[in-house]
Amino acid sequence: MNPLLKEIRHNPLLWLLAFVPALFAGQKLKPDAHTLLFVLSVLAIVPLAALLSHATESVAAKTGDAVGGLLNATLGNLTELVIALAALRAGEYALVKASVAGAIVTNTLFMLGASFLLGGLKYHVQEYNRVSARVQAALLFLATVALLIPSATSEADSATGAAFTQTLSAALAVLLIITYGLGMLFSLKTHRELFAGVESGEVGEAPWPVGVAVATLAGVTVVVALVSEIFVESVQEAAVTFGMTPAFVGFIVVALVGGAAEMASAFSGARKNRLDLSVGIALGSASQIALFVAPVLVLLSYVIGPAPMTLQFWPGAVVMMLIATMTASLVTNSGRSTWFVGVLVLMVYTIFAMTLYLLPPRVQ
Amino acid sequence: MNPLLKEIRHNPLLWLLAFVPALFAGQKLKPDAHTLLFVLSVLAIVPLAALLSHATESVAAKTGDAVGGLLNATLGNLTELVIALAALRAGEYALVKASVAGAIVTNTLFMLGASFLLGGLKYHVQEYNRVSARVQAALLFLATVALLIPSATSEADSATGAAFTQTLSAALAVLLIITYGLGMLFSLKTHRELFAGVESGEVGEAPWPVGVAVATLAGVTVVVALVSEIFVESVQEAAVTFGMTPAFVGFIVVALVGGAAEMASAFSGARKNRLDLSVGIALGSASQIALFVAPVLVLLSYVIGPAPMTLQFWPGAVVMMLIATMTASLVTNSGRSTWFVGVLVLMVYTIFAMTLYLLPPRVQ
Amino acid sequence: MNPLLKEIRHNPLLWLLAFVPALFAGQKLKPDAHTLLFVLSVLAIVPLAALLSHATESVAAKTGDAVGGLLNATLGNLTELVIALAALRAGEYALVKASVAGAIVTNTLFMLGASFLLGGLKYHVQEYNRVSARVQAALLFLATVALLIPSATSEADSATGAAFTQTLSAALAVLLIITYGLGMLFSLKTHRELFAGVESGEVGEAPWPVGVAVATLAGVTVVVALVSEIFVESVQEAAVTFGMTPAFVGFIVVALVGGAAEMASAFSGARKNRLDLSVGIALGSASQIALFVAPVLVLLSYVIGPAPMTLQFWPGAVVMMLIATMTASLVTNSGRSTWFVGVLVLMVYTIFAMTLYLLPPRVQ
Repeated sequence: MNPLLKEIRHNPLLWLLAFVPALFAGQKLKPDAHTLLFVLSVLAIVPLAALLSHATESVAAKTGDAVGGLLNATLGNLTELVIALAALRAGEYALVKASVAGAIVTNTLFMLGASFLLGGLKYHVQEYNRVSARVQAALLFLATVALLIPSATSEADSATGAAFTQTLSAALAVLLIITYGLGMLFSLKTHRELFAGVESGEVGEAPWPVGVAVATLAGVTVVVALVSEIFVESVQEAAVTFGMTPAFVGFIVVALVGGAAEMASAFSGARKNRLDLSVGIALGSASQIALFVAPVLVLLSYVIGPAPMTLQFWPGAVVMMLIATMTASLVTNSGRSTWFVGVLVLMVYTIFAMTLYLLPPRVQ
Repeated sequence: MNPLLKEIRHNPLLWLLAFVPALFAGQKLKPDAHTLLFVLSVLAIVPLAALLSHATESVAAKTGDAVGGLLNATLGNLTELVIALAALRAGEYALVKASVAGAIVTNTLFMLGASFLLGGLKYHVQEYNRVSARVQAALLFLATVALLIPSATSEADSATGAAFTQTLSAALAVLLIITYGLGMLFSLKTHRELFAGVESGEVGEAPWPVGVAVATLAGVTVVVALVSEIFVESVQEAAVTFGMTPAFVGFIVVALVGGAAEMASAFSGARKNRLDLSVGIALGSASQIALFVAPVLVLLSYVIGPAPMTLQFWPGAVVMMLIATMTASLVTNSGRSTWFVGVLVLMVYTIFAMTLYLLPPRVQ
Repeated sequence: MNPLLKEIRHNPLLWLLAFVPALFAGQKLKPDAHTLLFVLSVLAIVPLAALLSHATESVAAKTGDAVGGLLNATLGNLTELVIALAALRAGEYALVKASVAGAIVTNTLFMLGASFLLGGLKYHVQEYNRVSARVQAALLFLATVALLIPSATSEADSATGAAFTQTLSAALAVLLIITYGLGMLFSLKTHRELFAGVESGEVGEAPWPVGVAVATLAGVTVVVALVSEIFVESVQEAAVTFGMTPAFVGFIVVALVGGAAEMASAFSGARKNRLDLSVGIALGSASQIALFVAPVLVLLSYVIGPAPMTLQFWPGAVVMMLIATMTASLVTNSGRSTWFVGVLVLMVYTIFAMTLYLLPPRVQ
């Protein structure tokens, strides 16, 4: 654990780790101080995310950027899965769906856009492996399309329609998980060379040994999961205090905090001119939500939820997911990025956030 | 006819040709045995498709893959046209529209996806002429957009709206046929070099002389048309026996069997690493349905139908056509394919098929 | 002013400039002869557009095609802004919105398509800077998406919904203008090398000195603005005379005449094998309408209009804008064009125009 402790001593950001025990203490002593717990949990997630970022990069240094990105996406999305499971158990299906749609939109637009902007402010033009990016953007588009079909073909009103949507959602969930498995086979086994990153000289800090890195990845992910659960419990009431609508909370706040760990990795990759890592995390993570997290939640709703959950979304969420994935295809098409591409993608995200913030509560 | 007979002797698949006279005999003797006639007609189409495939490849060997693909698409779509004409004469406009939309979706997703998968299982990465594929994908997208406008702007309820949709459909049909003619001029005359395929060593079986090949193409197409007509007569009642919804029959079953001949050619091209042929058949055939078959049906409905047919589709069909053409643009953009791209495209098709299979009959 | 006079003497088209004073005289003497004023104003705009075209090319010769294109778009869109301001002052918000949506669609489809067709009839295959075209197509797509969000999320019926749409539109307007400013910074300062055109030998007529060119650009733009105002006053009544629907007038006629100056430049660029200029004008101009003209009109409606204007469009206009920008992305993706690409893009435009022409007046 020597390299981990050394890292903590040299990186002032990691001193925020003190907020992790503070949060757990706070939860024991004042379980009803929602605004306090909300602030503490956000503060606790930041250093955990930074730690996760360094561990992922150490593994990525051994395995190539894109495989490291995939690995990161898998562990990073455990957070989203844990958050959604808590909401699922409570039967809050609207929150579950908002956080699924929000995670896809936030990963695709905010994480990608901010990576392009942060990288572009440091480097004039950044290049990345466009073949890999295209495969991932296509995968994301098709995965998202699968999520949209029940919303596009359902009739909300009738009983026949409801039964149809439910059967279709369950069948889709099975199909998506099979596709996810085949995708793993493709990217980790038969065609892993497609996901190898463009060569990039600068490596940054010395990587940890793989053993330490993997142990840190696993351990920190668990702590992030625990912290995230407190975050979810407190966020709804804290949102009321801060004057936010429920749609905004589910779509934007949960997605931003839930994805904080991956964002730290993606942004740090962009600042080191390793955009392959950033694009891999952003698109890989969004695909994984669509192909793995969402169908697992649908299937688990039969076991742990009060009733089966469908894949039928609010039409506004459908439009936002479609635009987000089309934007990702469009901007990653060329394999080059500049700061203004980042600005444009972030503008679309800001518009979505603004719309959800202003939305009258009844509509969502 | 020597090479044709030699082919039949050496290829066990062609022994299925015996089902062609069996089908015609069956129709004479037991015209009401719908399930029997359905099974016989499917069995008869398979060897005819194989024969058509070899003949097309023989022509393609002389003219270049993409021109051969175009030629194949033209003859292959005669089948779809004959099927639709039979339905048109009977005034079954819902079936006509479902088979038009289904042929576009099936050619774009199933034929393209299965070609990528079958080719990708044999070759690690396959390359094809991306310039040609892009032109064809753009053509397909724009042709499909034209079909969608009446659905997007119509008001179903009012009499004014109905008259508007009808006038618009007729005007669109004329415009589409003019565009189809210009497209022929472009791809066969002014810019035929754009449609020349990437060089590919393996040629497979010895090609037939052009005379034999062209005669076989023509003759077999006529037999396919006759068999298809029996197929259409029997499919609706056979569908009830097998528990399929009418939407599923029109969209999936008619399109799959109607396109069997072209699929055999496209798949055989993919297995021989000649993806240009496969992409040319799949996208060319879908464009041709949109630019030629659909408008001809609209115009013929004034002559042989009980009432003028419009181009207004069920909204679900519009969404599926749009997603199918966007998918084609996305995946053919790079000029490279692997087995997993095929899996993804087939996943989207499976989702559509599943949705139509489960759809309550009233909705379509 | 010597080169300007020389130009006028040698170019018979510029003799039409005589219609400019004729128009102003006609307006003074017969202010109610709407059909006459309409015809005179169209005839007067043509030579002004030609003059503007030569002046822009002279500046472009000094600054590189794409910067010249941007400059041209800025000045060319003053016309659209002036037209829309006149309608805004009169409270004719439906006309303002139709002309905004129409200008985006017309620039993207008609100007781009006709440039490809005109260029393609002269040159077999034309190449242009695809990196620049992709950046501009992405910018246009994202700018247009911003305009569509209020339409996608609004509830037309309720009072809460109306207040929401109005607040959202004002907030969006501010965001769009900020993005426009950052876009200027990007294309004119930090990354102007991305917008440099592909080398093209043929230059055409001798360019004017920069001083004369800039003065002509400014002066002619003012005259175009004056003429356009008369055009707007007369167009509605002239439309009734010619049997056109209001939707057709706002979307097609106003956009075509308002963009005549830029079209002359774009077409002349295409005929000289300088497609970078054409694509720059077409996409740059459409982006500018979305990012600058539309938000300025929304903000000005608080000052000079009878009530605040929103960004909520007729659903058909939303579909047309989306299809137009997707078409632009698709066809500019490859950096190559031929006459048939132009035909296809023009076909989509013709379909839109036809639909609007036939549309029952009540629906728009």
